[in-house]
Amino acid sequence: MGGKMITIKDINKKLINTHYAVRGPIVQKAVELEANGKEIIYCNNGNPQSLGQKPLTFVRQVLSLLENPDLISKDIGYPQDIINTAKKIIDEDPNGLGTYTQSAGLLFVRKAIAKFIEKRDGIKSDPNMIHLTDGASKGIQNVLTALISKETDGIMLPLPQYPLYSATIELLGGSKIFYELDEGNNWGLSHEYMEKSYKKAVADGIDIKAIVVINPSNPTGGVLDYDNIKMIIEFAKEKNIAIMADEVYQDNIYIKQDFVSFAKVLNNLEINDVTLFSYHSVSKGYLGECGHRSGYVEYRNIPDDVINQLLKMQAVGLCSNHPGQIVIYLLVNPPKEGDESFPLFIEERDGILSSLKKKAKILSNGLNSIEGITCNPIIGAMYAFPNITIPQGKNDFDYCMKLLVETGICIVPGSGFGQKEGTHHFRTTILPPEEKLREVVEKIKVFHGNYGN
Amino acid sequence: MGGKMITIKDINKKLINTHYAVRGPIVQKAVELEANGKEIIYCNNGNPQSLGQKPLTFVRQVLSLLENPDLISKDIGYPQDIINTAKKIIDEDPNGLGTYTQSAGLLFVRKAIAKFIEKRDGIKSDPNMIHLTDGASKGIQNVLTALISKETDGIMLPLPQYPLYSATIELLGGSKIFYELDEGNNWGLSHEYMEKSYKKAVADGIDIKAIVVINPSNPTGGVLDYDNIKMIIEFAKEKNIAIMADEVYQDNIYIKQDFVSFAKVLNNLEINDVTLFSYHSVSKGYLGECGHRSGYVEYRNIPDDVINQLLKMQAVGLCSNHPGQIVIYLLVNPPKEGDESFPLFIEERDGILSSLKKKAKILSNGLNSIEGITCNPIIGAMYAFPNITIPQGKNDFDYCMKLLVETGICIVPGSGFGQKEGTHHFRTTILPPEEKLREVVEKIKVFHGNYGN
Repeated sequence: MGGKMITIKDINKKLINTHYAVRGPIVQKAVELEANGKEIIYCNNGNPQSLGQKPLTFVRQVLSLLENPDLISKDIGYPQDIINTAKKIIDEDPNGLGTYTQSAGLLFVRKAIAKFIEKRDGIKSDPNMIHLTDGASKGIQNVLTALISKETDGIMLPLPQYPLYSATIELLGGSKIFYELDEGNNWGLSHEYMEKSYKKAVADGIDIKAIVVINPSNPTGGVLDYDNIKMIIEFAKEKNIAIMADEVYQDNIYIKQDFVSFAKVLNNLEINDVTLFSYHSVSKGYLGECGHRSGYVEYRNIPDDVINQLLKMQAVGLCSNHPGQIVIYLLVNPPKEGDESFPLFIEERDGILSSLKKKAKILSNGLNSIEGITCNPIIGAMYAFPNITIPQGKNDFDYCMKLLVETGICIVPGSGFGQKEGTHHFRTTILPPEEKLREVVEKIKVFHGNYGN
Repeated sequence: MGGKMITIKDINKKLINTHYAVRGPIVQKAVELEANGKEIIYCNNGNPQSLGQKPLTFVRQVLSLLENPDLISKDIGYPQDIINTAKKIIDEDPNGLGTYTQSAGLLFVRKAIAKFIEKRDGIKSDPNMIHLTDGASKGIQNVLTALISKETDGIMLPLPQYPLYSATIELLGGSKIFYELDEGNNWGLSHEYMEKSYKKAVADGIDIKAIVVINPSNPTGGVLDYDNIKMIIEFAKEKNIAIMADEVYQDNIYIKQDFVSFAKVLNNLEINDVTLFSYHSVSKGYLGECGHRSGYVEYRNIPDDVINQLLKMQAVGLCSNHPGQIVIYLLVNPPKEGDESFPLFIEERDGILSSLKKKAKILSNGLNSIEGITCNPIIGAMYAFPNITIPQGKNDFDYCMKLLVETGICIVPGSGFGQKEGTHHFRTTILPPEEKLREVVEKIKVFHGNYGN
């Protein structure tokens, strides 16, 4: 009598309808091919240390001392400032990495982040308006969970976007309202497109809660300037919606342009009635510490009772991982001029950033040298999102799967990020070592020439 | 024109209706009092290292080497087996702790966990049926998210239960179906109570998806034997529901009784049509590495297409934190007899477990010595959940808040875990050092005598 396994019919339809291309069927195929001995070049996600980028020495030295504080009193050849930093952290956090922290994250880390924002932007920041999360992803998911409770709750997303957003909205059962980026204009923002998509959604009965902006952009490589950001803030004010500013690539800009934060522009405009959620992470930039899963969200213009709801959501998961909280402290508190470890820090940081800059150029130039492929300049972030001309009846999923099987190069179809109907793209990272990246370009050139023949 | 902050009216009602007492208003008050200089004894959650428990030396030595592999070739006085373990891990995981892993977690870690289960239970285990998560909490939330999509989707929960379950079900908008544990019978299971609550729910139109069992039990301290588990499995089979077995306290049993896993009984009964989700964690046991946020879920009797949905949910969050994945590898792969670090490992492990055993007794005896407080023996886990007699018109929230303000002892009201109507309880951990714990008992005795006067 009785007995029935859980079957697919028991599973939340919203989960079944969730798509996440960055780790979808093509990546699963790559893992399978690799297990069978094929060499795979993983260009599917921004995972720098998996492609040879070395962790920053000072970060790992401090972490090694905190994992085993017995090492502090031993002569293991670490610079004195590293020892001092570890001691200072232990003073602030005497029970160490094995403890749950406060739900919001360690207060001294949040204070350090607030100082970092104050220094970066010349504006005030409140540590109580900062929550530490397991990667920026988790902080984004928390805010979306707080804002979406029914199908008519909508979030505006750039097209193309990073699929964490679409996947989470699908899982929550909300509505994705895409606003197109202008590929012909270096993937720039278009007030007209934003207005158009907003109006259509409202006419369809959607209650738009927030607009997501990814700057520098994943996947397009575009970077917003002050006026772009001002335009978005004014748009959000006019429409009574919040802004989710994904700024995890703020240190990854390769062509002369400064990073401008949404917080700074909001402050300069003296706007205090537009809610801003802004995100940063240790996974990108020059740290590339993805595996440590650590990020933060800063809230602006938000009532205390809303913050308390967001804090409760943090509390249900207890806290973000403790070593990760330390990594973000180190991101905002690197060695200072005069410290023994400062020269090596600068050398490593600048080495990574200049190599990324070089690779951004190698990749965009390389892709543009292929007939049938057009790539906007990679101004920031870690990706190219080239437009590909493929034979009628073919699609970019098929293209990427065939490329993988034939060459071992693992990239993600543009359809996973969203693209204008009738166009085809793929996303690749700029992360493989320079020589490998040239090889990637060469292989794509040969493959593209033969594709569909 | 325009401009409106996000307000509480914009927030998901299901989030607003979510309760999580372990980090609720009483804990917030404690943090506030502490900031103003009051000494607080945190007995509100199972956070052993925050109360003086030392991390295991071998765990932290290996982690320090993996955070900075340069240390491996230096003479820093680590035992040879620690160096060998670190080298072996680096062979398996050459890109190190800074990388995203596979969504399911590192394969060599999952293989080690499968071997651990095989050894513990004498049954087969498949690494592909194991997912690594940021603490067991995350794995529990994932499965609940997969199973709950509407109000009529119900999950059976013990009363009292650990509020992660109730909070997550509230957030997902499903139904909590409580089955009472029998306080008069050492918080034992009652088939009658289970049947009663199941029938009532079905009559109310609820589609029950799974039954949660916490063994050893948080908060009651009860431990199930083979026959109890057999009864639950047969109940689940009869009712066509899945089992979520929360086994994170499997190493915390203080009174002569062996831990019996659901996997083992399921296997012995040769039942292959009841889906089992079973959970373990590095946060409890003798490691107490809560801050490293690491756990696993093992699936049994579940179709591949369901596993793929669960894997997709993992993928959207990319992966659990990488250092945590290593900690769980070390939990299932401690030093072996003959290793240089073995004697210290045994000394530390047994020291922690025997101290916990002693404290379980100090606490239950101490509480039982207070007139108006009755506490079942603490057989396992890390908590006492005593019954308190309080004056009419008073409630346990008020009791715990006053206790905090007067004595600095931070405990959680029974209402946060669920209790039979008309009864009052609180939950306290057994974790403070022995002397502190005696102090806790003394202070509660004085407080309880005066409460309500």
